[in-house]
Amino acid sequence: MHDQHDHQEIIRAAHAAADAARAAILPYFRLDALEIEDKYAPGVQSEGRFDPVTAADRAAERAMREVLARLRPEDGILGEEFGESAGASGLTWVLDPIDGTRGFLAGTPTWGVLIAACTDAGPLYGVIDQPYTQERFEGGLGRAGMVGPMGPRALRARAPRSLGEATVMTTFPAVGTEAEGAAFARIAEGARMVRYGYDCYAYALLALGQIDLVIEAGLKPYDICAPIAVIEAAGGIVTDWRGGPAHRGGRILAAAAPEQHRAALDILSQVA
Amino acid sequence: MHDQHDHQEIIRAAHAAADAARAAILPYFRLDALEIEDKYAPGVQSEGRFDPVTAADRAAERAMREVLARLRPEDGILGEEFGESAGASGLTWVLDPIDGTRGFLAGTPTWGVLIAACTDAGPLYGVIDQPYTQERFEGGLGRAGMVGPMGPRALRARAPRSLGEATVMTTFPAVGTEAEGAAFARIAEGARMVRYGYDCYAYALLALGQIDLVIEAGLKPYDICAPIAVIEAAGGIVTDWRGGPAHRGGRILAAAAPEQHRAALDILSQVA
Repeated sequence: MHDQHDHQEIIRAAHAAADAARAAILPYFRLDALEIEDKYAPGVQSEGRFDPVTAADRAAERAMREVLARLRPEDGILGEEFGESAGASGLTWVLDPIDGTRGFLAGTPTWGVLIAACTDAGPLYGVIDQPYTQERFEGGLGRAGMVGPMGPRALRARAPRSLGEATVMTTFPAVGTEAEGAAFARIAEGARMVRYGYDCYAYALLALGQIDLVIEAGLKPYDICAPIAVIEAAGGIVTDWRGGPAHRGGRILAAAAPEQHRAALDILSQVA
Repeated sequence: MHDQHDHQEIIRAAHAAADAARAAILPYFRLDALEIEDKYAPGVQSEGRFDPVTAADRAAERAMREVLARLRPEDGILGEEFGESAGASGLTWVLDPIDGTRGFLAGTPTWGVLIAACTDAGPLYGVIDQPYTQERFEGGLGRAGMVGPMGPRALRARAPRSLGEATVMTTFPAVGTEAEGAAFARIAEGARMVRYGYDCYAYALLALGQIDLVIEAGLKPYDICAPIAVIEAAGGIVTDWRGGPAHRGGRILAAAAPEQHRAALDILSQVA
């Protein structure tokens, strides 16, 4: 089933889905109050008012499902918005149309479209797409690259370095539960630099060789399958906080190299 | 001195300086370790090793000073890297070639080039430029707009809303001293959403109408003069934590409208 021809078809379908999601989402990004009132008053409502991120999320997942139904009719789909559709091929597309909805609502370019082609064993290929900056990161099936405002570039995670030399990211300072937050704080105190607030863009920066660790808790499969494919293709490592497989979500530790991974795992694995 | 013709010359000079800074900085952005070793081993050294952000900072300020010396020879310059050069016109260019050096080092697109044309009373005109995303925000002398990947757009800060409906940003969760951090935490607890880590890009998002408050401490004049010009032109408010002028730096409160400003000032003004 997964021969070379099929690999090219998977890659082509992922890019077509990412293109469709971009076109569906961007009209909703950075709307101001007047635009919402003028254009969308009779539209999608959430808690009694128009919610641009929910509208964009749904429009993008619908657009991606249409593309995949056409190009990959035998495959299954698991999407954040519309759940699971069974397939017959053994391949499932795991989709998060907007990862980082809070970032989207604040107008930051740190949210992204996540697309992964998975088997039960995990992702074969994944895309992290940032529609506003027009950056697209891909990894798996022999690919490890990105395109963006400065052109194409290979992805290559950083070389091993100590925690004291490492840059660490997470989205919220509290991370998750109190114990999860305390474990993160121990790592943060020992790191060279900590930055918050980057949503899925943090995984792209790790694959680009810019940072060393991303640590999160409470993730869903669709939050992490595409980042796993991209980071592993760039030479990095993604596991849960026990060192096991990460593609089912939960607590995530992404690292540029074994040294950074081990240093973080020593602390995170102590959390009950 | 500041007639209509001069205004156009000031605007033209600011854009020329921003163009020069972009060209000087981008070759240093997101370098990986091998590129640094190959290209820059004999170059600028800091703490015994090549430091791309210091090299980019200096190259950009040099490039902007050259442009301004040519186009605005009578004006003074105050730059983060090379200090103050006196002028004769009463106008001083206040320059921060890379605001957000930590973001730059982590590869995020949240740092920016800050350029402001100031008198002793404060900024007349300012530019916030993000070279990687190719976004440029300008405000003052009758302008309030931005250009970016989705084309040109007018800047307009949000309408009044309560703190409970507001989105708040700061760069580091600790903000500054313990008392400064505690005051921020009180505001954060009452806000709808808090995001960290955006450097000067947070001020641009406020001018774009995406967020309500930016709160920082310990800023220098070159960190805040350009954001003041851009935000005020968009209808927002920038003061210190007592409600006084902000263009000399220190503790900064930027707000979309009087209601958000007052709600934050009620808390921040209690800090000794």
